[in-house]
Amino acid sequence: MKTYRKELWFNVQGRREFINITPQVVACLTESGIMDGIILVNAMHITASVFINDDESGLHQDYERWLETLAPHEPVAAYRHNRTGEDNADAHLKRQIMGREVLIAVTEGRLDFGPWEQIFYGEFDGGRRKRVLVKIIGE
Amino acid sequence: MKTYRKELWFNVQGRREFINITPQVVACLTESGIMDGIILVNAMHITASVFINDDESGLHQDYERWLETLAPHEPVAAYRHNRTGEDNADAHLKRQIMGREVLIAVTEGRLDFGPWEQIFYGEFDGGRRKRVLVKIIGE
Amino acid sequence: MKTYRKELWFNVQGRREFINITPQVVACLTESGIMDGIILVNAMHITASVFINDDESGLHQDYERWLETLAPHEPVAAYRHNRTGEDNADAHLKRQIMGREVLIAVTEGRLDFGPWEQIFYGEFDGGRRKRVLVKIIGE
Repeated sequence: MKTYRKELWFNVQGRREFINITPQVVACLTESGIMDGIILVNAMHITASVFINDDESGLHQDYERWLETLAPHEPVAAYRHNRTGEDNADAHLKRQIMGREVLIAVTEGRLDFGPWEQIFYGEFDGGRRKRVLVKIIGE
Repeated sequence: MKTYRKELWFNVQGRREFINITPQVVACLTESGIMDGIILVNAMHITASVFINDDESGLHQDYERWLETLAPHEPVAAYRHNRTGEDNADAHLKRQIMGREVLIAVTEGRLDFGPWEQIFYGEFDGGRRKRVLVKIIGE
Repeated sequence: MKTYRKELWFNVQGRREFINITPQVVACLTESGIMDGIILVNAMHITASVFINDDESGLHQDYERWLETLAPHEPVAAYRHNRTGEDNADAHLKRQIMGREVLIAVTEGRLDFGPWEQIFYGEFDGGRRKRVLVKIIGE
């Protein structure tokens, strides 16, 4: 069994953003030399997500508005968590909707994807450097 | 390490449906000959889910109504994504609630399940052939 | 390849609770002797979750209130599932928001975690003994 590990770093300037990280994950897989197995890609921070969906800007605007409806940022004082001095309680909620991690099969050295699957980093509390972990196991 | 890969195909006639795919996943495991490891089962399409819950028709009706409340199909024009000519933006949202994939432990050649766990394909934008990937790694 | 399996048991007295199970998962990893690979931690019951987020009591109160808004327990009769004699349909919905399972990379014999990641058992229908499965594969 072979394993591979890499951290991807992001520094989103605004509060929220979706970034297509598929090319970086593909580069990790190539670097690993693993031909068959699975990849785990997870946010290492608890106010961010990794998810798989469509790379279509209109859909990303729909996600943004929808998540803001389900777990609004304002009023900040409505959240107990924000009494700690944070203002990011909503980000902890949004991340649960979109998920922490994805698992992807590796077959013949490639991400074993359907026609439209792309991997995204979802930032819900930006303004600082944050990480995604890529772990591959296989052979 | 042994690996196994299979695609399961579905063609839901209506827009939405939940299908119990546990028997097919069990058949994959038997065919693989893998006795110990993990199984990844994921939708290969971004308007569908694979999830684990109860095989109870009343609950499935509750899910259907609940998801329609959280992310209604209508009005179609309320979603930016639908300006691309699609009418399935809600399906991309519903799938995030229900999830893309499940991971199941394999122990002594069996799905290592609790008493009521069953695996479902959740279709949110039917009317065409779509796939689920089963990937098993272990020995 | 080495594998390891353990069940963790819980008996929450009230209906809902979040329990930090990180120490138990770390103990499993130590007991397994596995230095490199991945860990699957999943609820074996379909009205409970395993998720990764912050060990902050204010946030847990926010989650509790938020989940109750998205999928209220009352009125019990509003759910079809509860016609079976159950009163836990809301728990099946809440669990889909918070998720069934987490996957964690193992690197150099440790949970490969970001600075604040902690693993929680989320009980949404307590009052009886329920299980979490820990499965580790690696070497």
